[in-house]
Amino acid sequence: MQLEKYKIQQHNDDLLKGHERRLSYITSEIENSEAIIQKVVDFQIAIPSWALGTGGTRFGRFSGGGEPRTLEEKIEDVGLLHSLNQSSGAISLHIPWDIPQDAKAIKALAAQHGLKFDAVNSNTFQDQPDQALTYKFGSLQNVNKAIRKQAIEHNIEVIKQGIELGSESLTVWLSDGSCFPGQLNFRKAYQNTLESLQEIYAALPDNWKLFLEYKAFEPNFYSTTVGDWGQSYSYVQKLGNKAYTLVDLGHHLPNANIEQIVALLLMEGKLGGFHFNDSKYGDDDLTAGAIKPYQLFLIFNELVEGMDARGMNHATDLGWMIDASHNVKDPLEDLLQSVEGIMMSYAQALSVDRKALEEAQNNNDVVRAQEILQNAFRTDVRALVAEARLRAGGALNPLELYRSQKVRENLIAERGLKTVATGL
Amino acid sequence: MQLEKYKIQQHNDDLLKGHERRLSYITSEIENSEAIIQKVVDFQIAIPSWALGTGGTRFGRFSGGGEPRTLEEKIEDVGLLHSLNQSSGAISLHIPWDIPQDAKAIKALAAQHGLKFDAVNSNTFQDQPDQALTYKFGSLQNVNKAIRKQAIEHNIEVIKQGIELGSESLTVWLSDGSCFPGQLNFRKAYQNTLESLQEIYAALPDNWKLFLEYKAFEPNFYSTTVGDWGQSYSYVQKLGNKAYTLVDLGHHLPNANIEQIVALLLMEGKLGGFHFNDSKYGDDDLTAGAIKPYQLFLIFNELVEGMDARGMNHATDLGWMIDASHNVKDPLEDLLQSVEGIMMSYAQALSVDRKALEEAQNNNDVVRAQEILQNAFRTDVRALVAEARLRAGGALNPLELYRSQKVRENLIAERGLKTVATGL
Amino acid sequence: MQLEKYKIQQHNDDLLKGHERRLSYITSEIENSEAIIQKVVDFQIAIPSWALGTGGTRFGRFSGGGEPRTLEEKIEDVGLLHSLNQSSGAISLHIPWDIPQDAKAIKALAAQHGLKFDAVNSNTFQDQPDQALTYKFGSLQNVNKAIRKQAIEHNIEVIKQGIELGSESLTVWLSDGSCFPGQLNFRKAYQNTLESLQEIYAALPDNWKLFLEYKAFEPNFYSTTVGDWGQSYSYVQKLGNKAYTLVDLGHHLPNANIEQIVALLLMEGKLGGFHFNDSKYGDDDLTAGAIKPYQLFLIFNELVEGMDARGMNHATDLGWMIDASHNVKDPLEDLLQSVEGIMMSYAQALSVDRKALEEAQNNNDVVRAQEILQNAFRTDVRALVAEARLRAGGALNPLELYRSQKVRENLIAERGLKTVATGL
Amino acid sequence: MQLEKYKIQQHNDDLLKGHERRLSYITSEIENSEAIIQKVVDFQIAIPSWALGTGGTRFGRFSGGGEPRTLEEKIEDVGLLHSLNQSSGAISLHIPWDIPQDAKAIKALAAQHGLKFDAVNSNTFQDQPDQALTYKFGSLQNVNKAIRKQAIEHNIEVIKQGIELGSESLTVWLSDGSCFPGQLNFRKAYQNTLESLQEIYAALPDNWKLFLEYKAFEPNFYSTTVGDWGQSYSYVQKLGNKAYTLVDLGHHLPNANIEQIVALLLMEGKLGGFHFNDSKYGDDDLTAGAIKPYQLFLIFNELVEGMDARGMNHATDLGWMIDASHNVKDPLEDLLQSVEGIMMSYAQALSVDRKALEEAQNNNDVVRAQEILQNAFRTDVRALVAEARLRAGGALNPLELYRSQKVRENLIAERGLKTVATGL
Repeated sequence: MQLEKYKIQQHNDDLLKGHERRLSYITSEIENSEAIIQKVVDFQIAIPSWALGTGGTRFGRFSGGGEPRTLEEKIEDVGLLHSLNQSSGAISLHIPWDIPQDAKAIKALAAQHGLKFDAVNSNTFQDQPDQALTYKFGSLQNVNKAIRKQAIEHNIEVIKQGIELGSESLTVWLSDGSCFPGQLNFRKAYQNTLESLQEIYAALPDNWKLFLEYKAFEPNFYSTTVGDWGQSYSYVQKLGNKAYTLVDLGHHLPNANIEQIVALLLMEGKLGGFHFNDSKYGDDDLTAGAIKPYQLFLIFNELVEGMDARGMNHATDLGWMIDASHNVKDPLEDLLQSVEGIMMSYAQALSVDRKALEEAQNNNDVVRAQEILQNAFRTDVRALVAEARLRAGGALNPLELYRSQKVRENLIAERGLKTVATGL
Repeated sequence: MQLEKYKIQQHNDDLLKGHERRLSYITSEIENSEAIIQKVVDFQIAIPSWALGTGGTRFGRFSGGGEPRTLEEKIEDVGLLHSLNQSSGAISLHIPWDIPQDAKAIKALAAQHGLKFDAVNSNTFQDQPDQALTYKFGSLQNVNKAIRKQAIEHNIEVIKQGIELGSESLTVWLSDGSCFPGQLNFRKAYQNTLESLQEIYAALPDNWKLFLEYKAFEPNFYSTTVGDWGQSYSYVQKLGNKAYTLVDLGHHLPNANIEQIVALLLMEGKLGGFHFNDSKYGDDDLTAGAIKPYQLFLIFNELVEGMDARGMNHATDLGWMIDASHNVKDPLEDLLQSVEGIMMSYAQALSVDRKALEEAQNNNDVVRAQEILQNAFRTDVRALVAEARLRAGGALNPLELYRSQKVRENLIAERGLKTVATGL
Repeated sequence: MQLEKYKIQQHNDDLLKGHERRLSYITSEIENSEAIIQKVVDFQIAIPSWALGTGGTRFGRFSGGGEPRTLEEKIEDVGLLHSLNQSSGAISLHIPWDIPQDAKAIKALAAQHGLKFDAVNSNTFQDQPDQALTYKFGSLQNVNKAIRKQAIEHNIEVIKQGIELGSESLTVWLSDGSCFPGQLNFRKAYQNTLESLQEIYAALPDNWKLFLEYKAFEPNFYSTTVGDWGQSYSYVQKLGNKAYTLVDLGHHLPNANIEQIVALLLMEGKLGGFHFNDSKYGDDDLTAGAIKPYQLFLIFNELVEGMDARGMNHATDLGWMIDASHNVKDPLEDLLQSVEGIMMSYAQALSVDRKALEEAQNNNDVVRAQEILQNAFRTDVRALVAEARLRAGGALNPLELYRSQKVRENLIAERGLKTVATGL
Repeated sequence: MQLEKYKIQQHNDDLLKGHERRLSYITSEIENSEAIIQKVVDFQIAIPSWALGTGGTRFGRFSGGGEPRTLEEKIEDVGLLHSLNQSSGAISLHIPWDIPQDAKAIKALAAQHGLKFDAVNSNTFQDQPDQALTYKFGSLQNVNKAIRKQAIEHNIEVIKQGIELGSESLTVWLSDGSCFPGQLNFRKAYQNTLESLQEIYAALPDNWKLFLEYKAFEPNFYSTTVGDWGQSYSYVQKLGNKAYTLVDLGHHLPNANIEQIVALLLMEGKLGGFHFNDSKYGDDDLTAGAIKPYQLFLIFNELVEGMDARGMNHATDLGWMIDASHNVKDPLEDLLQSVEGIMMSYAQALSVDRKALEEAQNNNDVVRAQEILQNAFRTDVRALVAEARLRAGGALNPLELYRSQKVRENLIAERGLKTVATGL
């Protein structure tokens, strides 16, 4: 299903008056609103192909309907999101769930929707039906060299697929680890993993990046072989200049100060990108900004400050991706909410008075520093984000338009009620 | 030090134009802004006498200056806060740190500052110099009956002090618990505590409430005898109608859903009141709303909904107190920030579209329910809170006025640099 | 597959000499070893029907082989375990995964293996293929009365199935809760759940118990409607004398003091039973005693002390069940390890010098209290547990015998490599 | 107070028969008991000078009596411990709490008690009375260069003190961090800290080590500038070969897999040493092995395996120290319990069948790997540890002898009831 331009236009026309009132107010309150709007226009967040269907837990899965059955339909769904918010101009594929039969045709389809291919993702945390050796006891860490080899080759294959599509990065998330004390020799698991990563790294084109994601626990419940930022950092340091750490917000122990981790990885030149989501307990994969929006803002506050300090381009020098699961919501609605939450945090972070903050920090004026950040966070920047969408050709209120156009009902009519997208 | 009215007036005059622009905008955006302003005017948050000096940790304490040396000076400090924000019209005393020598005179002084006496607090977590028996191994739980008796009598004495001052509630926070497995028989500790509380309860005037605070850990590091809401609830149920649970936001295990606890205690008619603060790791006693402002909003969202459902008066039917420690900030500045953070959350919660939320809940429309809450939270209600202050005779920007009037410098000049207020 | 008695006999004969040396040593070291052995003999732990197959996570499932395909084969598997350790003399069924076609025949089969039917478990956390209404937004809590009714009827049906089999308790675990703030009205969710439970309770035979399990999170990631012991306690109090709280060790927030919860529930007469497992991060469902064996001992320490204080029968007055998942181990081997871990903790707790402990507690002798508990925990009681097995007709080393008899290989030969048992 | 040799002799004589029975049993059960005994004899754990007095929390401190009032008395106390267990042959001093007036005399006194000086500890987390500039906003991280300089000079002074005493390592624990978002620029705090550490490192003698301790939180409650192992690792990597990470067991976020961290730091050649203690909630500073003894064993399991793999000397190639606080116990009794807990874990780790474990790991035999570790942990090795003490000239049961000799009563008689040792 595609959304005709005129419908977006009509929707915007209806809301324009109210929007302009709000925009005019906020631009009178904030100094750099024009610059913020422009940066928000440029900022694109990749949608993972596996987040377009209903998620599930080990306890069950409650299907929605109209889920994409093919890679083509996934691209169509992301295209739809992008037409609504003009901020989702990329898709992140997961191999082998999304192997294109005809890469050229897929590229053309994506281009038609204004989409690029962001990082490609390998999968060695599940066994595929036709797979020779099992990953039950890990992949790149495995004590069995043949299994490591199989996993390495899979990653190299994913790179090849990515090259075909114009992707320029590989995200490696390993569930490798152990469920019980004694199961693994931690050192050997590390060394096997490092060697395997080195072989994959060697297959990386020059203009590519390798993102090494870490995760504290799940699906292994005693140890994870790339378990925290320190471990990821120690691997990517050894791998080389094209290797970076990827931060998934839900992959930390309770109470972790993620914004500090982000700032330090940036400082070390080893931050590669993000998987956005939110969580209360573990890797809950909830909508970005739905639980701890201030934390999300603080993370963007570090990103803006740190990237500017290094002269980095916000839009292109890090990988921005969502990684969420949708157990009780329509996935497309949830993705619209996630993008909105991310954009608001980014806009708020852009509105921070950096000079005043630096001054407060230099004076150890803790009260003032807090005021400066809270001032930015308490400011209602929704009109700036909406204006960015408007200028880019998107909808002022994507969610409202999505509902009024009965998108989900249409998708169900097209695809059926019992479709199941690949993914979690 | 007192702040002359004309200075507040002057300050407000200077800021009025900007304020009115912001107020006019927000009242045009929100339907019930007038009702919100009125409710914020009525809402008062008690300041604890122990939060007026620099706090500390077991690792040290870095004094500020100008700390109140006497109960009179503490009242003066709260009076100053109240003159600034007109929202801190009560003080919560801690016995024996704040025993009034002349209750009548103290009451008069407080009245002069427009202050009431909120809950009085007993202290059996420290030994006082003149104390016969030690609380090293607990007070109301102690295996030694004489120690329990001493602690009971102390609490009854605190009630008496409170009666003199016009207080109408007693907050009991017990550090009772154990540091090592085996140290306590949990059942006997519970039963001793219950019996002790029953004796204290028996001494409570008819119009008083007993607030039983719970805490997960610290200063005991293995068990706490009133350790979670379930335990507090089981005690207050047995004690009777005048006994309630008090929620201190920092007293929970990691990731606890405090808003749900609040909703259920309200439902059971057993929620007594709050100690506001914020935290990232433990009982960090940070400024309210400084770390997890969305959680604070969600708590107020439950309070507003739940109190309205029971026909309760927001301002008077629960006890509202701050309990924070100020290790790196000027305590008075921090308290201004805390009150502001609380008021904003309250105002945002008042602005939630309850009817729409109920409808969304009845339709299991999770996306819409989230939108409704986020809409309220993302709205910038600072002008409403400022307007409430203005109408009540306070300052539009209390912190700015506090600084421009060099209050701390004056207090240091008056009281000296090395004063140390009693407290934590 | 069944294990002939003579094989157990042979195995025991081979190991007897070593066993007797160890037994003789430990009985000379511990005063009440004979009483401990007898109590261990009597103690039976129910095996849940859903733990006999390979478990999985939302990320995947790595099948083993030879998994039971039918209820008959599940009973056979538990029978095998019981023949090995003589401590697994009960099975806990899960409806609708294990609906018996012919209850009489199933009872006879179980009796043949020496097995009873422990608590029956309802399932409203998944939708079944033929189900009219979905539990996506909860079952007993649902805003839709028809869905609540469906869930109530399912529970009543489960009771009926249980009556047929001779079970005498119903375990209700609800995944009901919410994934996002605003999704639920906590109070109404509680009240709906309470009313639903009251209807189920009304259908309970006089000699039955209802166990209400609580869980902090998963599969809902914002709130759970029976989320902690305090909530379960508040429901079962309202339900009546036949309603009890069930404690699953993995269902707590980080750092919770579970042994204290157990002691207090026992004190209140509201502890119903246990789901044993171990965990490091969340509800990891690992082998009992595999991660925090000292905690397991401390829990048994409270159980022994508290049950004795109330004159309860250890073996029969609480429900003892395992609830684990086996992602990387042979489920039967894991269950043998879990039972062994539980039995050791129980035996150690029985060996605690209660009189000395009470004395130490009465003297606030914390060092001595710790010594007493550590002394019991550090004592190697494996020979006592083995002797209990020997006397009851089991194997001295069940795991060794299981392996030497190539049980898994035989089961695979019988049932095939790709069988998948129902369950998690 | 000193314990005459003949009293230890007498005590041992009384207990010898029972000990020999237990020893004979365990040596018949374990293959390498003789080697274990010898290694335990060699293993010495340093006692920190600040752990000899009663600890406290921010809520209060309940003094014991007879606390050491001077450095001489502290050495005497450690000497007493060492005479009892022959395992506490070193003391770790804290400057400025323990500045020796006459280093030569202090060295002689220590030698007389058989004690060496382990790592010296700097203190920039408190202000000293005569200090020019405050550490309220950090020391090595401070935005103020003069404060950094003061802190650097203090550390260099500590090194000088250490040289005088024969110490060969400096432990740097920084409380540097922030309490509120915005207070710090994380990157600049890191860089200031790094530069400061580089200056300290430059002052280090060639044969010295610098241990950089990390801590997740407290006394700063938002961020810590050396907050986790990854951060410490990134500093010590940059500092050079003499810089190492120090692991304090209580300094982690909830649920952290510390044994994995230990294994990886060893692998990287960057593990410097340990601060032993135990905890349930935060940095509780409880007796080693009192809460999670299996975790302590697993850590030693990694240490033994990893040090052997690198050909390291267990006794001398890492720094072994206790860091505990004694709020409710006699500090000397608690230290005896801590050393016993550590020694048992070490002995159990030494008894692990490494060859079988490696084989199990190579076969992904998770069940067997767990059995091997649990077998070692469940074995009662107390007689081996006692035998090590006996051979070294210590007491079979140090705690019993300490009590029967009424050591604390004697210390109180000597030193008084109200003495307060410096420390936490």
